[in-house]
Amino acid sequence: MLPITEDKLNSVIDALEITDLTTATIRQICALSAELERAAGEKYVHLELGNPGLPAEKEGLEAECEALKRGVASCYPDIAGIPSLKKAGSDFVKAFIDLDVPPYCIVPTVGSMQGSYTLLTLLKMRVPGKDTVLVFNPGFPAQRQQAKMLGMNVVSFDIYYSRGEKLREKLEEILAAGRVTCMIYSNPNNPTWSNFTQEELKIIGEAATKHDVIVLEDLAYMGMDFRRDYSQPYKSPFIPSVGKYTENYILLISASKIFSYAGQRIGIVCMSPEVFNKRYDHLEKFFEMPNFGECYIYGVLYTASSGTAHSAQYAMAAMLESAVEGKLPFVKETGEYARRSALIKDMLKKNGFHIVYEKDCDEDISEGFFFTAGYKNYGSEHLQRELLRHGISTISLPCTGSTRDGVRICVSTVSDQSTFDRLASRLKEFSDAHPE
Amino acid sequence: MLPITEDKLNSVIDALEITDLTTATIRQICALSAELERAAGEKYVHLELGNPGLPAEKEGLEAECEALKRGVASCYPDIAGIPSLKKAGSDFVKAFIDLDVPPYCIVPTVGSMQGSYTLLTLLKMRVPGKDTVLVFNPGFPAQRQQAKMLGMNVVSFDIYYSRGEKLREKLEEILAAGRVTCMIYSNPNNPTWSNFTQEELKIIGEAATKHDVIVLEDLAYMGMDFRRDYSQPYKSPFIPSVGKYTENYILLISASKIFSYAGQRIGIVCMSPEVFNKRYDHLEKFFEMPNFGECYIYGVLYTASSGTAHSAQYAMAAMLESAVEGKLPFVKETGEYARRSALIKDMLKKNGFHIVYEKDCDEDISEGFFFTAGYKNYGSEHLQRELLRHGISTISLPCTGSTRDGVRICVSTVSDQSTFDRLASRLKEFSDAHPE
Repeated sequence: MLPITEDKLNSVIDALEITDLTTATIRQICALSAELERAAGEKYVHLELGNPGLPAEKEGLEAECEALKRGVASCYPDIAGIPSLKKAGSDFVKAFIDLDVPPYCIVPTVGSMQGSYTLLTLLKMRVPGKDTVLVFNPGFPAQRQQAKMLGMNVVSFDIYYSRGEKLREKLEEILAAGRVTCMIYSNPNNPTWSNFTQEELKIIGEAATKHDVIVLEDLAYMGMDFRRDYSQPYKSPFIPSVGKYTENYILLISASKIFSYAGQRIGIVCMSPEVFNKRYDHLEKFFEMPNFGECYIYGVLYTASSGTAHSAQYAMAAMLESAVEGKLPFVKETGEYARRSALIKDMLKKNGFHIVYEKDCDEDISEGFFFTAGYKNYGSEHLQRELLRHGISTISLPCTGSTRDGVRICVSTVSDQSTFDRLASRLKEFSDAHPE
Repeated sequence: MLPITEDKLNSVIDALEITDLTTATIRQICALSAELERAAGEKYVHLELGNPGLPAEKEGLEAECEALKRGVASCYPDIAGIPSLKKAGSDFVKAFIDLDVPPYCIVPTVGSMQGSYTLLTLLKMRVPGKDTVLVFNPGFPAQRQQAKMLGMNVVSFDIYYSRGEKLREKLEEILAAGRVTCMIYSNPNNPTWSNFTQEELKIIGEAATKHDVIVLEDLAYMGMDFRRDYSQPYKSPFIPSVGKYTENYILLISASKIFSYAGQRIGIVCMSPEVFNKRYDHLEKFFEMPNFGECYIYGVLYTASSGTAHSAQYAMAAMLESAVEGKLPFVKETGEYARRSALIKDMLKKNGFHIVYEKDCDEDISEGFFFTAGYKNYGSEHLQRELLRHGISTISLPCTGSTRDGVRICVSTVSDQSTFDRLASRLKEFSDAHPE
């Protein structure tokens, strides 16, 4: 029965040893909503999960099965990546971002999670004294956790207050001391779905060059700024990237969301040739290898997992190739998330909610996979709890590093009419029960 | 033309920026032999590579393709492992090692490389002050590299001089100071193919319990001690393991060699329930999770790669299940390596070579995937160089941490008669050219 009582909610939270709802992991929130579902005897609307809500691209599946039949399972994959994947990655970056990243600078990883973890490992070592990572807030909590695991210092700021020209001042303030080795953000942003403007990317790029900082640009949701049409390979407009404004960039491109291929844990790291070829005394001594790129591949990735599953590399290569040839319209296909997002935002607004991160400078944000929602002057935890009581599971903004009140909504798995209907009636009940 | 001249060899070594042949990485040695092959215009005999020399098990391939067709690629895999794999791993350990490891203590990793790297990461943190890993020498060089990457102290000793009861004294000497958090060895041993006797495993287990040290037992070549018949599930003799003598154990079981599945990067970590459930103040504070096992799965593995490819988990589950049911006779199949090893050892002995690590206490070592060979009183580097000049590529023992002179021979890819014949004639030429 919904709503769940406060007492019941508290007892389930206690039983799961969750000490603070706003900093709980996604996994804990999933366990919590599953438990509450059982307690209520009613299905929850799951807006917390980031699983793809579309089927995996068939080009990938077919290529994987063919590769397995050809016998690739018995041989160690080249840690640097199979040649066809390196070539396809290079073409893909050219076709959709209009950047020149040669095949030798394209390296597969076990998802972009391994990409960022292993890159942070090396970026922490490249220059003694540069031991800090700048994490843009709000952001993907796992990346902060990775930095913590690696014993790196983390500095952050909430982008809400530093958009446009203000960003320059904020970056200058943080980078001037020279301790920052890299900065990391996702574009579109998880959880807000904001996108940096070209002017902001230029500011970030210039600051990176000036202060010898490497930018990790996480393109997990590449192309999903649906305000422009980024769907055509080799045609303007191209997907914006900091790579247009600095040589100090590394792109993280994951198959998880753009190809709905999260289960196979495959992504590519795309380094600018300048980043790949740069020599660092400290790295040369430690790894006995001549440049950053080789230290990364044969030093770090080798020790982390000896490379990435052979068949998944063939899948990724096939999907990238098809996209480049215009046969796999991944931008159009993921546009389905924009449709769901628009519907859900409407429902929320009708019931008294507002969008917390609403603008990219003077333009409304795009529809997409995630967005942020607040309710009146409710604090994050209070809102998350009350939604949970009413059968709606979300994660709260503080766990993404946000300083603002609200929750993150993931629209991916709200796919059928019955789920939309359930969400609509739950929101109505919620808002009726919370007039103030 | 073989032999390659000394000058030619030196110039290729210089061109590849290899500063020391005896500490070069496998990858560098492969690049070197490929280059020398071109220079000589003749095929080399590759005894340096550790690629499986058998086709991947079909049970795995079929299960992977079926899982992909069922749609697993679009969903994140459970980081703790899919239930069927956890169950199959538990059954497999019971059937072949006669140890009770419940399913919740079985966790998939991206090969045992990720297994050992991520375990070392956590073992380094579990007790402040226990910052050292004991690596048995000779051993798999990558594990030492992993410890170095993690900034751990490494202590080692050469097992050659500490077999049998002497091992107790040696371990006591090393562990008494209380700085060692874990020890790691592979059984059968890479590169020597020695196996610890039951008495030695008991000594290791008792020392681990006494000094609160966790044993990482790397079973990459599980069952390949062909002196006993370990091929029958649920029947004695069982594969020896330190798990019989201490609760402080973690087994690493990889699909790479036992199922010839190296390309798909899949292995399982099998923790004793006591290791899994142990609570450590420091870990609880850092990860906000209650025990070692959960910190490992949801703390370390989550940040390292968000788990292991979905389809490969299904493959591993299917292969383990088939083995447990007696339908996939992996021990018998890998017996092919013993056949090759016996032939190659004969050839070597006929040409004046000897086995460097020849005995397990008073018994001759098993045939298998690797063995060690020396020639007269030649130093390791001299022998490796002269073999290279004669068209035979190996790695030298110093890079495995050995204090003895010789090279490692990997027999896996010497499969057809023409390769055996080529090896025979090269060895004859070598020995004729090196009478002293």
